[in-house]
Amino acid sequence: MNRPDTAVLAARQAGLRRALMALDVGTLVVTRLCNVRYLTNHAGSAGIAVLTGEGLHLLVDLRYSEAVRQLQDSPGACPDLSLHVVEGSGSYDESLAACLAETTAGRIGFEANEVSVSRHGRWSRMLGALDRPVTLVSTEDVVERLRMVKDAWEIDALREAATRLAPVAEAAFQAAQAGICERQVAAAIDAALSGVGFERPSFDTIVASGPNSALPHHHPGDRRLETGDLVVLDFGGVLSGYCSDLTRTVAIGGLTRERAELYNAVREAQVAALAVVRPGVEAWQVDAAARDVLTRHGLGEAFGHGTGHGLGLTVHEEPRVSRRRDGVAPEVLEAGMVFTVEPGAYVPGLGGVRIEDDVLVTDEGCELLTSVPRVLQTLG
Amino acid sequence: MNRPDTAVLAARQAGLRRALMALDVGTLVVTRLCNVRYLTNHAGSAGIAVLTGEGLHLLVDLRYSEAVRQLQDSPGACPDLSLHVVEGSGSYDESLAACLAETTAGRIGFEANEVSVSRHGRWSRMLGALDRPVTLVSTEDVVERLRMVKDAWEIDALREAATRLAPVAEAAFQAAQAGICERQVAAAIDAALSGVGFERPSFDTIVASGPNSALPHHHPGDRRLETGDLVVLDFGGVLSGYCSDLTRTVAIGGLTRERAELYNAVREAQVAALAVVRPGVEAWQVDAAARDVLTRHGLGEAFGHGTGHGLGLTVHEEPRVSRRRDGVAPEVLEAGMVFTVEPGAYVPGLGGVRIEDDVLVTDEGCELLTSVPRVLQTLG
Repeated sequence: MNRPDTAVLAARQAGLRRALMALDVGTLVVTRLCNVRYLTNHAGSAGIAVLTGEGLHLLVDLRYSEAVRQLQDSPGACPDLSLHVVEGSGSYDESLAACLAETTAGRIGFEANEVSVSRHGRWSRMLGALDRPVTLVSTEDVVERLRMVKDAWEIDALREAATRLAPVAEAAFQAAQAGICERQVAAAIDAALSGVGFERPSFDTIVASGPNSALPHHHPGDRRLETGDLVVLDFGGVLSGYCSDLTRTVAIGGLTRERAELYNAVREAQVAALAVVRPGVEAWQVDAAARDVLTRHGLGEAFGHGTGHGLGLTVHEEPRVSRRRDGVAPEVLEAGMVFTVEPGAYVPGLGGVRIEDDVLVTDEGCELLTSVPRVLQTLG
Repeated sequence: MNRPDTAVLAARQAGLRRALMALDVGTLVVTRLCNVRYLTNHAGSAGIAVLTGEGLHLLVDLRYSEAVRQLQDSPGACPDLSLHVVEGSGSYDESLAACLAETTAGRIGFEANEVSVSRHGRWSRMLGALDRPVTLVSTEDVVERLRMVKDAWEIDALREAATRLAPVAEAAFQAAQAGICERQVAAAIDAALSGVGFERPSFDTIVASGPNSALPHHHPGDRRLETGDLVVLDFGGVLSGYCSDLTRTVAIGGLTRERAELYNAVREAQVAALAVVRPGVEAWQVDAAARDVLTRHGLGEAFGHGTGHGLGLTVHEEPRVSRRRDGVAPEVLEAGMVFTVEPGAYVPGLGGVRIEDDVLVTDEGCELLTSVPRVLQTLG
């Protein structure tokens, strides 16, 4: 697996320290694992990072201590790292309290949308027993806001991940034939994802045929594809930790006029949304561009989800490309953001269509990272 | 996908109401998705269940409303369900507040180890605006404690999932040959999991060969298997939502005496642990049985994780079979619990061994759910 080198991590940590300074917080306890990975290259299923003004403390248990030592002997070593090995299971909180007692004081930030009420209660009790004043300060999305604008290393990783979906789409089109069941098509897609080198699917592959295509998040089942079906194929893979995500809707052996019109309306909505993407635009405006087209086709009600979501170390992250929300400051697009553009329309009794690509916001507009034709594919 | 029928769900909901009565809580807001699924059969990636004395309110967004309506027309219908469709993204909290305002008052429990500090703050503000007294009450693991003892439907699902690992292990043994890289072996395992009908792997498949076998959670990479290697193969699949988990350690073309002794010590530890499992025993005693054997072999330090974990809708749940912890009430085994027994020993420079099976606690002792020979397999 590729990973960023020490200089990239140092730049991320410096960016985080600047963000913390603006919050008057000297230390941040990072418990969200994708944020830990972003800052340290530690990609395990457990671990806590504590960023202070001087360095970074990484707490891992015995399952990961050897892997972190190997990481520190590699070009991807985390800068200024102090490793704390948590002995025994379940004692992360105790180790964190000991680490904070040794290294920091004053205002300690934590990720309030990640830390549970129970855990916060335990931390408060443990820190309350210290002989100097320590305040836990709620923060939200501090690392997530940094992650929203990708660095050059991440853009390369996301571009490579999106590019590799082209042969997977070919395999999906080969597999989607009348008489084959959804589950088999999904298995062919998953095998192709693995075959082109993805570490794992970004999410459970969706194959939704015929009436099931009207369910945006259908699980592939035993239904066999039939002539006249719309089939929604939604899949993606994770490469070097970074997610890709693509949807194509195909026709089995020709469509009724009504279904073909549904396809064309969604395609037109996607074209309209893509045309709007550039720095300075607010994310909801991209959503509105797609939604306006579908509404004009009488499909406003049939489009029940947002137009897109950010992609990175997680498959659903900021920016959210969805309706403007009252009382929430709109997200402004910046060069380096990567997200999906995936309008859809779902009509019970008729079927559903979704078309999804991944885009990078550039200085001039956007770059399409995925490269699979969007013309309707009619399969056997 | 199979799912329990209405009578099974009704029994689970009745059990939960009894548990809530003991806490003097009339309503529970269930946000942990596996708990929502356990109570309702709704298996989406979003949703909130609110159990009151009279019924169950299920909040889902437009992506899932059609699927829930289909569920309610099936034998798996959730009893006494009121469906609330959340309009637009991100407004679950508003919908929940509206639902609670209409339906309940007094002490409302929430899952304090699942709800974030941020979310709890939003709920408190919204409920504070109501014209009658409502108190949010922290609860911990109320549904999880019910889930710890499996019902007959779950035992069937777990038994079937564990049984299907036997042909997957065969495929893994076929694939693990000198000259083949870890990633290829993992791909063969994942293909076999899919081939026997698992919905997805329970976790990222582990193939750790030679020096990598000393890393308990190694990611499969480009290293090619070599004669003399220990290779840890750890995999599982999800069937009808329920997880299985198996580890075998194999030898490539024969082992040194030191490595063979390592294998035999871990095997002896697993036998000792399995011999202890029966109702009334405390979970840490199972761990101690394995740990004592490894300590006697000078491998106490080399066994850095717990002996096992519960299996169910998640791959790591209660009971935790690990060291006794001061100040924590020990978990007592009951008939109907299902967990892994997986001692291991990891020696940098020499290699690692882990042997893992899934067991059901029965009235008399335990039933081994997995059925793959534990004798050392020496492969080509």
